Parts: sequence; structure tokens; C-alpha cells
Amino acid sequence: MRVRNKPWASEFIAENRHIAVAQPSEYKGKWRELFGNNHPIHIEVGTGKGQFLSGMAKANPGINYIGIELFESVMVVAVQKVLESGAENLKLLNVDAADLTEIFEDGEVNRVYLNFSDPWPKKRHEKRRLTFKTYLSLYERLLEKGGEIHFKTDNQGLFEYSLRSFSEYGMLLTFVSLDLHQSGFEGNVMTEYEEKFSNKGQRIYRSEARFQNT
Amino acid sequence: MRVRNKPWASEFIAENRHIAVAQPSEYKGKWRELFGNNHPIHIEVGTGKGQFLSGMAKANPGINYIGIELFESVMVVAVQKVLESGAENLKLLNVDAADLTEIFEDGEVNRVYLNFSDPWPKKRHEKRRLTFKTYLSLYERLLEKGGEIHFKTDNQGLFEYSLRSFSEYGMLLTFVSLDLHQSGFEGNVMTEYEEKFSNKGQRIYRSEARFQNT
Ligand SMILES: C[S@@+](CC[C@H](N)C(=O)[O-])C[C@H]1O[C@@H](n2cnc3c(N)ncnc32)[C@H](O)[C@@H]1O
Ligand SMILES: C[S@@+](CC[C@H](N)C(=O)[O-])C[C@H]1O[C@@H](n2cnc3c(N)ncnc32)[C@H](O)[C@@H]1O
Repeated sequence: MRVRNKPWASEFIAENRHIAVAQPSEYKGKWRELFGNNHPIHIEVGTGKGQFLSGMAKANPGINYIGIELFESVMVVAVQKVLESGAENLKLLNVDAADLTEIFEDGEVNRVYLNFSDPWPKKRHEKRRLTFKTYLSLYERLLEKGGEIHFKTDNQGLFEYSLRSFSEYGMLLTFVSLDLHQSGFEGNVMTEYEEKFSNKGQRIYRSEARFQNT
Repeated sequence: MRVRNKPWASEFIAENRHIAVAQPSEYKGKWRELFGNNHPIHIEVGTGKGQFLSGMAKANPGINYIGIELFESVMVVAVQKVLESGAENLKLLNVDAADLTEIFEDGEVNRVYLNFSDPWPKKRHEKRRLTFKTYLSLYERLLEKGGEIHFKTDNQGLFEYSLRSFSEYGMLLTFVSLDLHQSGFEGNVMTEYEEKFSNKGQRIYRSEARFQNT
């Protein structure tokens, strides 16, 4: 998701440091202190414009949410959304997923969400997919024992790949839906991409996979 | 698949014992002797009218195929097909999948095919699904180390269930297609059900899963 460069974005973000945390690595091992409670921490990697996490934060006040987004120009829209919603259990970090272990202590996170991650369909770009094994090993480090990845996408190729990748990594597949919106699944919160693609009649795929023996 | 009772079926089968093996348990551990070669043995559980195995046997003369079918009235159609094709690398057994370990020695089989198995959608019928864990443990016993199950279905619920069941059993998912006929997969041989459902515009799902550490 590329958004035109927004000159005012940096300024807006600088004014909202209670939402868009300035130096995330300073909170490594101390995220619960920052939230001021001992609630579980769920992160979304590749948060985009923040619709999913805003909805989740509202629906689940007993969970602390942290969104990770690479592009400031995209994250700024999420910051606006959180500001409007007044949610206090949601922070946003303008960082690269590759740096996650600089931000979180081992075992500090309780769940990882991946929603409509960039598919990188070319085989030579496999390493960039957020479900490639090097990313899985990052998530495994920062997740608690038995922590799970909850993954949604409309992209058939990425979903097929990811199921295989989870399995090859030794993860346990605990949930698979090949048509989420027809499945009777309760409590779904739509992301921007999910809304867009399901309006076009695309199926939404969803899985839950658990790290084992860690 | 229920077919009207065919009074002539028993007779026809009795006349073609070179295809429809009479006392399968007598060949336990000796299937390669019966085929007269040392080729790999691939079995299909729930063969139906035999279109898949006839096609596979023709395409792969270096593999010995064995079809397992519960109903004589269905299997008789498969016997006719094998007779017409003249294939010598294909036998049919009128037995229940539950009795597989009486028919095959541990490790005697090299691959298991499951095609369009009865979905048994009700939760209370889970145990009857041919991808339920008790069946997986039968297949594991008769398969060689690292043996695989190749599975096709049009049934979304059964496919979702089976991916989870394979994973929970500790199997490795090595192939997943969520739309086989659009995937560029080569060498596919259609089953009767596959033809019927894909003509109706249904997607075909396909997976390969491997037993590990056995
Ligand atoms: C296709 S969008 C999906 C956005 C949102 N999750 C949704 O479902 O609508 C993918 C997002 O992931 C972000 N992203 C991609 N790679 C990333 C990385 N390595 N670290 C953090 N964010 C990343 C992109 O900038 C983009 O905003
Ligand atoms: C839905 S049909 C599919 C037939 C064929 N594989 C196809 O794809 O066209 C399922 C077949 O499995 C057979 N079957 C079901 N349970 C079985 C069991 N326990 N042992 C052997 N065959 C079984 C049924 O009799 C039926 O012929």
C-alpha cells in the first residue's frame, strides 16, 4: 500500500507520541509498563491504515494492541483513527518487521496478527513474504510459549504458501477457513483490504497456527 | 456413492479374480509377488468406479496400484474399466478401509490416495471421515517411512478439517492447492467426482501430507 508522501505526516505523528511511540526499542521488555497494566499483548505486523486494530481495541479492552507499520505515510492514517476512537489500549510503531526482536523481549508478546500481507508472488521474492521462515523465527522468539499467528488474506497463492511454511516450520494448524465470510466465524473485524476484496466478491482465507515445543 | 444392487455383480467379480482379488489378506506382505515385480505400491482408499486408478495405471506403468472399495456394486464398474483397459498394474479389493492393516504389512505401501472421500459433515460423524486420526494411524502403519497421503476433494469443510487433522497428527504439509484446475499442476488424472463437480464450476482442493519420524 503506497500513499502519496504526506509532508504533514511527520509533524502529525510527532504531536501524537502517546499513540505513535517515538523510540520503540526503549520499551523492550517494558511494554506492559507503558500500557500501565498486565494485559496480554497482541501485535499486528503490517497494520496499514489501522482499521483492524482500531476495531479490535474497541471490542477487546482487556488486550493491549500494538501495530507495526513500515511506512510513515500509511501509519499516519492509523494514528488519526486511533486518535478519533480514543482507544488507550492501542499503540503504533513505525518500524520494519525485520527489527521486531529489537523492540520486544523474548516471550513478551501473546499473539501475532498478519492481515493481507504483501503477497510477493515471485519465487525469488519468497524471503520477503511475512510468512517466510526467517519471519516465523522472529515471531517465535517474541511470542510466549504456544503463541499463535492469526493470518487472513484474499491471496490464494500466499495462503497456500503460508500453510506449507507454517507446517514446515513445525507449527500446528489449529484453524483453517477457506471462505471466512461464509463460515459462521464470530467476532471477525474487517481490515481495509478485507473490505475492499470481499466487496469485489473475493473469498477471504483465514488460519491460526501455533508454535510448538518452544 | 450408492449404486442399485446388481445381481450379476458377484458373478462378474468372481470371473475376474485376476483384477478383483478374492482373499486379499492372503497377500499381506506379498503384494509385490502377486504383481510379479518390485515396483512401488500406491493404494487408493474409496476407489469408487475406478476412473482415477485406471488413468494412473495407464500413465505410470512402473507403479503397482491397488484400489480399495467398500461396495461390491460400485467396485464392479471399476473391474469392467480395468478389464477394458487391459492394465496389469492395477488390482481392486472389496474391503473396508478399517481393515487395511489386515491386508498390508507394515511399510508395504508407498503412497495413499484419497479422492473425494465422503465428507460426513456432522461433527458426530467425524470418526467416519477417512482423514480422521484413527484412519491416519492405519495409513501410517502400512506406509513406508516418510510416506505421503495425496488428497483431493471439492468439499471445503472436509478439506479444512483434513488440513487440521494432518497437522494435529504431526504430518508435514508439502503441497496445498486451493484451486487445482487453475493451478498449472501437471499430470492430474480426474476422478468421476472430480469431473462431475468441476463441470458444475466447483473448485477442486488438493494436498500432499507426509508422515514424519516413523
Ligand atoms: C497489503 S497492506 C495490508 C494492510 C492491512 N493489514 C489490511 O489488511 O488492510 C500491507 C501492509 O504491510 C506493510 N508492510 C509490508 N512489509 C512490512 C514490514 N516489513 N514491516 C512492517 N510493515 C510492513 C505495508 O506497508 C502495508 O501497509
Ligand atoms: C464419494 S465416492 C468417491 C469415489 C472416487 N474416489 C471419486 O473420486 O470419484 C467415495 C467412495 O468411497 C467408498 N468408501 C467409503 N468409505 C469406505 C471405506 N471405509 N472403505 C472403503 N471404501 C469406502 C464409497 O463406497 C465410495 O465409492
